[in-house]
Amino acid sequence: MAARELVIGFDADDTLWHNESIFEKVHERYRALLAHYHDAATVDRTLLATERKNLELYGYGVKGFTLSCIETAIHLTGGKISTEEVQRIIDLGREMLEHPVELLDGVAEVLAVLAARHRLLVITKGDLRDQQRKLAKSGLASRFRHIEIVSEKDEATYREILRRYGIAAENFLMVGNSLKSDILPVLALGGAGAHVAYHLTWAVERVEEVPRGQARFFELEKLRDLPAVVARLEQLRPWRTG
Amino acid sequence: MAARELVIGFDADDTLWHNESIFEKVHERYRALLAHYHDAATVDRTLLATERKNLELYGYGVKGFTLSCIETAIHLTGGKISTEEVQRIIDLGREMLEHPVELLDGVAEVLAVLAARHRLLVITKGDLRDQQRKLAKSGLASRFRHIEIVSEKDEATYREILRRYGIAAENFLMVGNSLKSDILPVLALGGAGAHVAYHLTWAVERVEEVPRGQARFFELEKLRDLPAVVARLEQLRPWRTG
Repeated sequence: MAARELVIGFDADDTLWHNESIFEKVHERYRALLAHYHDAATVDRTLLATERKNLELYGYGVKGFTLSCIETAIHLTGGKISTEEVQRIIDLGREMLEHPVELLDGVAEVLAVLAARHRLLVITKGDLRDQQRKLAKSGLASRFRHIEIVSEKDEATYREILRRYGIAAENFLMVGNSLKSDILPVLALGGAGAHVAYHLTWAVERVEEVPRGQARFFELEKLRDLPAVVARLEQLRPWRTG
Repeated sequence: MAARELVIGFDADDTLWHNESIFEKVHERYRALLAHYHDAATVDRTLLATERKNLELYGYGVKGFTLSCIETAIHLTGGKISTEEVQRIIDLGREMLEHPVELLDGVAEVLAVLAARHRLLVITKGDLRDQQRKLAKSGLASRFRHIEIVSEKDEATYREILRRYGIAAENFLMVGNSLKSDILPVLALGGAGAHVAYHLTWAVERVEEVPRGQARFFELEKLRDLPAVVARLEQLRPWRTG
């Protein structure tokens, strides 16, 4: 089975557990904090611009987000925000890091089914310690053979991970909620992608292009549909790559 | 050679390049920022206490350090620090992330010599993106077969890395400036350790216990002494572990 074995990679945030919904709740409180100075749309737009500007330097994750929130608040209030409010932003960041992990519907069952027949990986970006903590809290860690926390999910990253574990792209399926980070780079390498949308998508992760009509691309309504897709994929392979 | 090959792991910060000296310069400017409110010793002590408190949540690295600096400044000034000064702390953090990488003396030459005969690894903790960026800037990345950025350097971490790459502990030498993170856990697993002190050590990394008198422990004055230690170690092996 080794050579033909289908290996399945999973994104974590918003694929295995809720994440963007936690950010969204923090955004609400952040808007409320600045409501005295600006309307919600201005706050959102300016924060997103700060995050984009800082992304290259900070990378993904809660700590960089918190720093961007503080910077934006100082900027948007012309320095008039109080240090008490700055502390409240730091506390919001801390709450995010301490937030319980809430699994998405069906995750535990689907992983149990698939782990019995396949090697499963987690490939996620974000803060190293935060992602490890969430995996530990999730109770899912033992389902995964390898856990890769990376700073960017692009073709080079996936190529390196597949090389490291000796996985041929044609034997690899990546499952995730972000077309940009989970699906498109894996399709480009000749792997398969299963997209399970989350009801919220961070603007930085949005792409226009949906790779419909590709035999190796699957759009799922919910993660519970994954075992059926895996079974279909097993029949399709070997596919012609490139 | 495979089975007997000595694999050499390197810490990065303060082993390959200057790091604590950059933190020290930032500390100086941070003390100056708060000099109006408190003496340097109080600032240092309080910041260290905040860092220790936040370490479990934030992990290592510049972003967590920056957040701890802001929190400490608000606390130490009873909220009277200005947002302009908070912004200056954010800018200090940014400067650290953008700081050029300055190699320690002899690093490039020693790695060139050792890479010709040994598999070299980097094992470092800190922010994922920051450490990757420093490795890229250092010009040293091609010397290393594997680069591991981890959230903690303890026995479990080293055990997992050795397992992942199929390295027996008795064939592994770790080189670094921190007894706590680079040397003691590797000795405990049955590997060898070469300690090259840096002239500054962050309080969190300090240990009392120096494992002198262990055949697998080497204290180096400078990294240039490493090839001689490796040659000696090659003659010592196989050593009795445990």
